[in-house]
Amino acid sequence: MQLNHHQSPSREGGDDRHRAGPLGVAVIGAGYWGPNLARNAASHPSTCLAYVCDVDLDRAQRVASTYAGAAATADFRQVLDDPFVEAVAIATPPSTHARLAIAALRAGKHVLVEKPLADSIEDAEAMIATAELHDRVLMCDHTYCYTPAVQYLRSIVHAGDLGDLQFVDSVRINLGLVQRDVDVVWDLAPHDLSILDAVLPPGTGVRSLSATGADPVGAGQSCVAYLSMELDGGAIAHVHVNWLSPTKVRRMTIGGSRRTVVWDDLDPVQRVSVFDRGVDVTHDDGPDAVTNRKIAYRVGDMVAPALREREGLAGVFDELVASIREHRQPLTDGRAGLRVLRMLQAARASIDSGGQAQPIDDNVSLVSA
Amino acid sequence: MQLNHHQSPSREGGDDRHRAGPLGVAVIGAGYWGPNLARNAASHPSTCLAYVCDVDLDRAQRVASTYAGAAATADFRQVLDDPFVEAVAIATPPSTHARLAIAALRAGKHVLVEKPLADSIEDAEAMIATAELHDRVLMCDHTYCYTPAVQYLRSIVHAGDLGDLQFVDSVRINLGLVQRDVDVVWDLAPHDLSILDAVLPPGTGVRSLSATGADPVGAGQSCVAYLSMELDGGAIAHVHVNWLSPTKVRRMTIGGSRRTVVWDDLDPVQRVSVFDRGVDVTHDDGPDAVTNRKIAYRVGDMVAPALREREGLAGVFDELVASIREHRQPLTDGRAGLRVLRMLQAARASIDSGGQAQPIDDNVSLVSA
Amino acid sequence: MQLNHHQSPSREGGDDRHRAGPLGVAVIGAGYWGPNLARNAASHPSTCLAYVCDVDLDRAQRVASTYAGAAATADFRQVLDDPFVEAVAIATPPSTHARLAIAALRAGKHVLVEKPLADSIEDAEAMIATAELHDRVLMCDHTYCYTPAVQYLRSIVHAGDLGDLQFVDSVRINLGLVQRDVDVVWDLAPHDLSILDAVLPPGTGVRSLSATGADPVGAGQSCVAYLSMELDGGAIAHVHVNWLSPTKVRRMTIGGSRRTVVWDDLDPVQRVSVFDRGVDVTHDDGPDAVTNRKIAYRVGDMVAPALREREGLAGVFDELVASIREHRQPLTDGRAGLRVLRMLQAARASIDSGGQAQPIDDNVSLVSA
Amino acid sequence: MQLNHHQSPSREGGDDRHRAGPLGVAVIGAGYWGPNLARNAASHPSTCLAYVCDVDLDRAQRVASTYAGAAATADFRQVLDDPFVEAVAIATPPSTHARLAIAALRAGKHVLVEKPLADSIEDAEAMIATAELHDRVLMCDHTYCYTPAVQYLRSIVHAGDLGDLQFVDSVRINLGLVQRDVDVVWDLAPHDLSILDAVLPPGTGVRSLSATGADPVGAGQSCVAYLSMELDGGAIAHVHVNWLSPTKVRRMTIGGSRRTVVWDDLDPVQRVSVFDRGVDVTHDDGPDAVTNRKIAYRVGDMVAPALREREGLAGVFDELVASIREHRQPLTDGRAGLRVLRMLQAARASIDSGGQAQPIDDNVSLVSA
Repeated sequence: MQLNHHQSPSREGGDDRHRAGPLGVAVIGAGYWGPNLARNAASHPSTCLAYVCDVDLDRAQRVASTYAGAAATADFRQVLDDPFVEAVAIATPPSTHARLAIAALRAGKHVLVEKPLADSIEDAEAMIATAELHDRVLMCDHTYCYTPAVQYLRSIVHAGDLGDLQFVDSVRINLGLVQRDVDVVWDLAPHDLSILDAVLPPGTGVRSLSATGADPVGAGQSCVAYLSMELDGGAIAHVHVNWLSPTKVRRMTIGGSRRTVVWDDLDPVQRVSVFDRGVDVTHDDGPDAVTNRKIAYRVGDMVAPALREREGLAGVFDELVASIREHRQPLTDGRAGLRVLRMLQAARASIDSGGQAQPIDDNVSLVSA
Repeated sequence: MQLNHHQSPSREGGDDRHRAGPLGVAVIGAGYWGPNLARNAASHPSTCLAYVCDVDLDRAQRVASTYAGAAATADFRQVLDDPFVEAVAIATPPSTHARLAIAALRAGKHVLVEKPLADSIEDAEAMIATAELHDRVLMCDHTYCYTPAVQYLRSIVHAGDLGDLQFVDSVRINLGLVQRDVDVVWDLAPHDLSILDAVLPPGTGVRSLSATGADPVGAGQSCVAYLSMELDGGAIAHVHVNWLSPTKVRRMTIGGSRRTVVWDDLDPVQRVSVFDRGVDVTHDDGPDAVTNRKIAYRVGDMVAPALREREGLAGVFDELVASIREHRQPLTDGRAGLRVLRMLQAARASIDSGGQAQPIDDNVSLVSA
Repeated sequence: MQLNHHQSPSREGGDDRHRAGPLGVAVIGAGYWGPNLARNAASHPSTCLAYVCDVDLDRAQRVASTYAGAAATADFRQVLDDPFVEAVAIATPPSTHARLAIAALRAGKHVLVEKPLADSIEDAEAMIATAELHDRVLMCDHTYCYTPAVQYLRSIVHAGDLGDLQFVDSVRINLGLVQRDVDVVWDLAPHDLSILDAVLPPGTGVRSLSATGADPVGAGQSCVAYLSMELDGGAIAHVHVNWLSPTKVRRMTIGGSRRTVVWDDLDPVQRVSVFDRGVDVTHDDGPDAVTNRKIAYRVGDMVAPALREREGLAGVFDELVASIREHRQPLTDGRAGLRVLRMLQAARASIDSGGQAQPIDDNVSLVSA
Repeated sequence: MQLNHHQSPSREGGDDRHRAGPLGVAVIGAGYWGPNLARNAASHPSTCLAYVCDVDLDRAQRVASTYAGAAATADFRQVLDDPFVEAVAIATPPSTHARLAIAALRAGKHVLVEKPLADSIEDAEAMIATAELHDRVLMCDHTYCYTPAVQYLRSIVHAGDLGDLQFVDSVRINLGLVQRDVDVVWDLAPHDLSILDAVLPPGTGVRSLSATGADPVGAGQSCVAYLSMELDGGAIAHVHVNWLSPTKVRRMTIGGSRRTVVWDDLDPVQRVSVFDRGVDVTHDDGPDAVTNRKIAYRVGDMVAPALREREGLAGVFDELVASIREHRQPLTDGRAGLRVLRMLQAARASIDSGGQAQPIDDNVSLVSA
């Protein structure tokens, strides 16, 4: 991994040139999410949208035509050959992520990839290794991690304000679009898992994951699923995703020994509530630890911090630009994308095995493609 | 099982005699729950409180003294020998349930037992067998099942108004009393599991259960747990119980192909909401079922039925009296108590095994004690 | 008033010509609200945006340039002279409404005017008289009246589903923009009053209005105000508008003898709730009506109807087109605008007089300008 | 007024005697509210219940029999003659308050009177004058003022935490008991008005009050009413009371220049919310104050303080005992009761006069009865 350590001489000139102006971005894929990337690349003060690239040229043109200076193309090679393009943002089907990202990294581009990072561990590891070899930024678009609410959650967890982590409970349910190619876990849980990955205290990883799912409508894949994770230190994390709920809930609770925070993403008035409440168990050093433990409850005030309203994607582009300019890893780098991918695959394996806990490996095999 | 089928001649006289007046009840155990049983036995129009029995006579006297005509005793034998006592309501520690209930059944008393029915499958089966042998009612005090809200849930599920069952999701979390002798599953989940048992459509049983739990505060047992159940027909049921949550939630959602109902027990204004919404997947009979399935969404009105406010225990005594008078099984009979007990034990086994699904047996070994 | 009664022969040809294609609309005023009118005129299936006209030509051009076929102009005369323009939508300062609308009506254009209709009763009456003289549609843009929620309220009140009207209570409070030129009544209450005007049962008018207001921040005009209206039939309507509230509320309750409906515009999940609850007082025909009256309470179900989500302005253009095509008065015609204006002026007079009730005249002096 | 200033020698002995034990209380009136007074007098650590007195002796006996040591009587004279009785708590119909209270005060008893203090200004003034002449405590049972929530509101207003008072808005609506003898203002508004009286900053009085009401059900008196009050300093207070609302709301907002507090009495989880939000208007000392004013908005955090749950009546008895023991005026003394009474009478006069503002006198004519 070279980012954060040194900078190759050949890029110095280019970086200097670009530092004077906005960072040129090409968006690859003009389907569902690509237009959002294009809009943000065009409107962000530090980037400009150079290309919209799609195998369907009409679709690329419809998106590009809205933005002055943006070209439409169906030729990915053209994008890679243009020295003005410093970064490509990939929003194509997951099975194509590795091929496109690796080509872009080899061409010296920084890469932002839509979640999930790839559709196999091997591909994800190859992407990470390639980024490191070519000293480029590889960032995964975990959009929620850049909302003001999640940034706030991360800051209070990392500052230790919650005390020791006790549990994380995340619910993301809605009358959702039952899909043919992807189950509810791969559709919705990447949000919860990437947020979990971003907010957990440093050094706290996911040890194992067990999951159950059901397809009660005969959709061909799970429409309701529950993921349960054992964390380092004894805490538990749980994710409930559901396409069949008539009520919409998007709520995450992070419980700690000192405080507990509830994030209700559907409450614009009080999105985040920090409760000064908790349960403490203290132990005497007496001969019988069990009979001498004491349980204390605290019920204090609740504070709902004022948070600005800002689209997560704007923060994604902030971090993309900053990590490139500062030559460092972004918050949601390739390794974060890989960790989320491993949890998704563990969920699939656990559902298939009747709920058996799957260990979560945290090594990365650095064999570049 | 003789209830519902015939009635022994020797009881006819007794039943006739009692039908003329209120049913004499003795409450065994004057600790936490016993006083509630005593209050309801005394105030119910069809019962009268004859005894409060506790090994601590002072405690029995404090409870009995409030009610005219109620005697206090520390002598369980005295209760069993009194012919006026037709039913005993047992609210002693679970380990004593089997011994006391079996003695009462043998003495010809009907028995209402606090949940859980017993602390072992063997004891529960012996209680059921004894009740059948002596043709007495054995009822488990699953209080919530007799609230107007759960009665309503049961009625619309059984009437088929929800269509095919898709999922049940129950959350029961609070800053709760961390206990020494019982984990959060045994403390809280009996409520969810007994409600589930009462509302599931006839013929829909629990096939298997997997669970995960955590003790992040060092309490010595699980303080947070998640139970996931595979139901007959492919639906899933899930229970989340938590002693560490600063916010209190008691919400159950029952999703069906036609309607979905949400019960929020903490919302006195709108406890039950029935949503005319859902997802339907239909299949053509074409050569490729998968590509020919069609997914339809419905978003219709929501109805919040007017429900009266009434204590669950009053309904428990309604059912106790009715099942005795009508010589039939109560809604929450010994078998219902046994089913809940099996789920609790499966949860414990699954947590110990890392989330592995445990099959739920639905046979009862009828060996009376 | 000629609309709805006859159609002048000279317009027949014109109507036929226009029925073949979209209705040409010119938007006058490109400030705060004009761009919304332009967007809807351009996107509505039955209209097309012909001009954006503003004394500030740059501003007109910025708005017009977004829409193919829309011309920008600073010359109001040019708009009036263009036979393709059938309707003008006026979103200029209120003091200019009468002059512009009357000129347009005289030029044979139909007119949609931003609320308030005018800034004096005399001007409003002149506008109405001119529209009638020239047999053109004069419509006031009471946007909220065309939202699905208000359309639903109107339909159930007019269908008699609520029974006899008892009270209307409307709250519209927020941390709002304290303005220099207009008080909170003229800023916010037109919404409540126009909705009230649209939903009241036929034949139920406002008899009198009393109001109180306060300027506790020294803004120079009322920042908090309360309006109370006596309705025909003995019911009461009340409006609370407030710029200083840290919490945002937009809720209207319409109480009737049979049902009561609550519209909470900030609850996207349950915007409208119809309660089958109420109080009935019945009177015997005995000698002493007071002592023989009986009060009955009903507590029945609540129904939250499924409503589609649609911008009110789209409905405004639906009604503008339909009233022109069908040669009839629109729902929110000039007279509706005049009624709202009279209530606003009565509120001002009542606040100035210390809360004294002001009678609301419902005659219109038909002296055309 | 002698309380707080000196103590008559003749009482010294008596006070010393009583300070050694609990304060003897007689409850007069055993109807709707009397039993609550009796329960609190019996359970409060510093009082004991000596008598329950009612013209209906059976009713007095039913209440008294629950409490050891409490005698039932129909003879008010007996109560007054008993030297053990230091205070009488009067919960009889309002028309009898003055006669009973004055007799008790003359007999040397301290007096707690149910709201409203009396049914005429003259009676109330006579009660106050008598209490002062006899140097006894006269306290009005404004129960809500002693809840933890209102105590908190009072403390933050008096501490200046809200900045300058801008507005008070109180809503108390429900499907309520339509009564024969009292309108919705006299039934419900005493709560709002007494709370207002207790929480307003020192020196801030009610200058005038205007009100409107309606009787849309033909009940014979107002069932819906709105009260609007002009406060010293330019702020406004408003009260909405309604017997016909199918939804229950009990919410008071107190807006200030620095913070605004919302009290929602029906939200047990977050009864009080303090918003660090507001609107400030500052003025330059320039030649044109209007054009130089600046409006600033603040949107800061919200804090929901942890409040204990405690019945208001327990606090009433705290204050009764403390004001007697400390020989001082209670928070809700006779003058507070008189101020509330004057507002109620002003509301009646304003409704009768079509909303005309009524001045609120704040002098007390000290002519003792």
